[in-house]
Amino acid sequence: MSEFDLIRTHFARLGQQRPDVLLGVGDDCALLRVPAGQDLAVSIDTLVAGVHFLTDCDPESLGHKALAVGLSDLAAMGAEPAWATLALTLPPGLPGSQPGWLAGFCRGLGALARQYGVALVGGDTTSGPLSVSIQVHGLVPSGQAVRRSGAAPGDLVCVSGTLGDAGLALRQVLAGEPVAEGLRLRLDRPEPRVALGLALRGIASAMIDCSDGLAADLGHILEASGVGAEIHLGSLPQSKAVAAVGDWSLPLTAGDDYELCFTLPPDRRPVLSRLATAGGVALAVIGQIEQEPGLRCRLPDGTELPLTRTGYDHFAG
Amino acid sequence: MSEFDLIRTHFARLGQQRPDVLLGVGDDCALLRVPAGQDLAVSIDTLVAGVHFLTDCDPESLGHKALAVGLSDLAAMGAEPAWATLALTLPPGLPGSQPGWLAGFCRGLGALARQYGVALVGGDTTSGPLSVSIQVHGLVPSGQAVRRSGAAPGDLVCVSGTLGDAGLALRQVLAGEPVAEGLRLRLDRPEPRVALGLALRGIASAMIDCSDGLAADLGHILEASGVGAEIHLGSLPQSKAVAAVGDWSLPLTAGDDYELCFTLPPDRRPVLSRLATAGGVALAVIGQIEQEPGLRCRLPDGTELPLTRTGYDHFAG
Repeated sequence: MSEFDLIRTHFARLGQQRPDVLLGVGDDCALLRVPAGQDLAVSIDTLVAGVHFLTDCDPESLGHKALAVGLSDLAAMGAEPAWATLALTLPPGLPGSQPGWLAGFCRGLGALARQYGVALVGGDTTSGPLSVSIQVHGLVPSGQAVRRSGAAPGDLVCVSGTLGDAGLALRQVLAGEPVAEGLRLRLDRPEPRVALGLALRGIASAMIDCSDGLAADLGHILEASGVGAEIHLGSLPQSKAVAAVGDWSLPLTAGDDYELCFTLPPDRRPVLSRLATAGGVALAVIGQIEQEPGLRCRLPDGTELPLTRTGYDHFAG
Repeated sequence: MSEFDLIRTHFARLGQQRPDVLLGVGDDCALLRVPAGQDLAVSIDTLVAGVHFLTDCDPESLGHKALAVGLSDLAAMGAEPAWATLALTLPPGLPGSQPGWLAGFCRGLGALARQYGVALVGGDTTSGPLSVSIQVHGLVPSGQAVRRSGAAPGDLVCVSGTLGDAGLALRQVLAGEPVAEGLRLRLDRPEPRVALGLALRGIASAMIDCSDGLAADLGHILEASGVGAEIHLGSLPQSKAVAAVGDWSLPLTAGDDYELCFTLPPDRRPVLSRLATAGGVALAVIGQIEQEPGLRCRLPDGTELPLTRTGYDHFAG
């Protein structure tokens, strides 16, 4: 069996039965049907070995994460995941010399795809330095997608889950320190907040996923909406492990958490507990939108934290 | 201006005004509207430096080719190009140390995008070994896409343009020989046969684009359709330059030509000249579909060419 056949065999297992897939892998294009009354949401992301993940990382985790990053983008629009395409670049000999690699990668990707009913409908496999590009496609009732641009003064700033866990895990990995299993999973197997994103349709005024760090990602909402915000650092949701470090840069600027940050008109505060139940994740109010542009971070003692670094940037970071 | 800003500035110029783009670059996802009665055709392709192009290649040609490869896949389904997303991985410092690189890349990509009305709706730029992944999205009236699987015994096998030009140009480049300008353009700036693909909707019984070499690509049609074919090598359309070499492997197995290979029920032969006019490219009948599986290549003297190598395979080739 050639390496090409091996890849085809593994990928064929990632196809899902969906009536809206008219033609999947195996022709010049996949053919897809968007139902009437639905808009199509698409996002493409690349993970590069040595930049976004360690070259010797667990392939199953890589398969999971490559898809999770895209599903998180769909969640941040309130879109329901539907299809994915995969462009996989593999060093010559990788699947051959490490027979388990491709099977592990497909196992991780496939488990997450099945969980969310995502069909792999197309792909391209090339030889070269290890990297993974995945495009995700989601569906959202026409006009109901949640954008970054809808935040208004007075809106509450909210965030799901806890912040800084992936950043702490990465810090420990890079330092060669032992990493607690739960923390490691936050870095390696992020859970896209799909159910929460869907529950926030028609409710949140703006939304983004925290991939580059809260300050940077909230900053995108502020810029797109033409507003500012004050957040209370004492309100940032942190795990015990992150809180024990006592370093604001972890919950504020470390990336890769894939929690959702959203804004909520203040009269909708009563629905927060229902949203948390629907989303299967805790929600915290961390501040409010203000007219004055910029992000102000209030320390527990009432003074303002000077923001010298506003997050993670793949080129500057 | 950071490199990130530089990239954003260049990419912003690639956005096209299309009423079906509800939200383009700049949010978690792009939002797109597929018109009622249309199916969505998608294809993703990656070009890797050192594998699919020379690292020091002209960036304008690279931008052109990265999109052309995708548009050729849309053409091969009879789909009309609509949108593209771009995942660009750049070595740190490349746009900075070569200020013209990114501008040239975007110029090449943008010119082709404008020619076909394609809007760049999303992207991801990462740091790493140079590679380009582009996903194209096209629209085709529901049920009218031309697949690989519809060829039937008795159908004519047809091909557009001339075959082997890109292969000859590559051979000369790799040998350090001078390459005639026209031949070089066939390798660097392939013309996707979009108009021909659209004209063949409802007419061709099966279609594919010649990216891996005629024998391999026609082989995909035969396999998908459960048929075989005999082709007449004397009928293969060749440029003077390729014909002068007198090596069947050029028109038969060299890749990268991006011509369309299609099958046509024999009673439709009279429309070929109209199709050539509509497609803006010459068309040749090179053989016919037969019941018996496999591809048989008849030499001008009537004997059969033994096929030892059936084309180009990114892993085997």
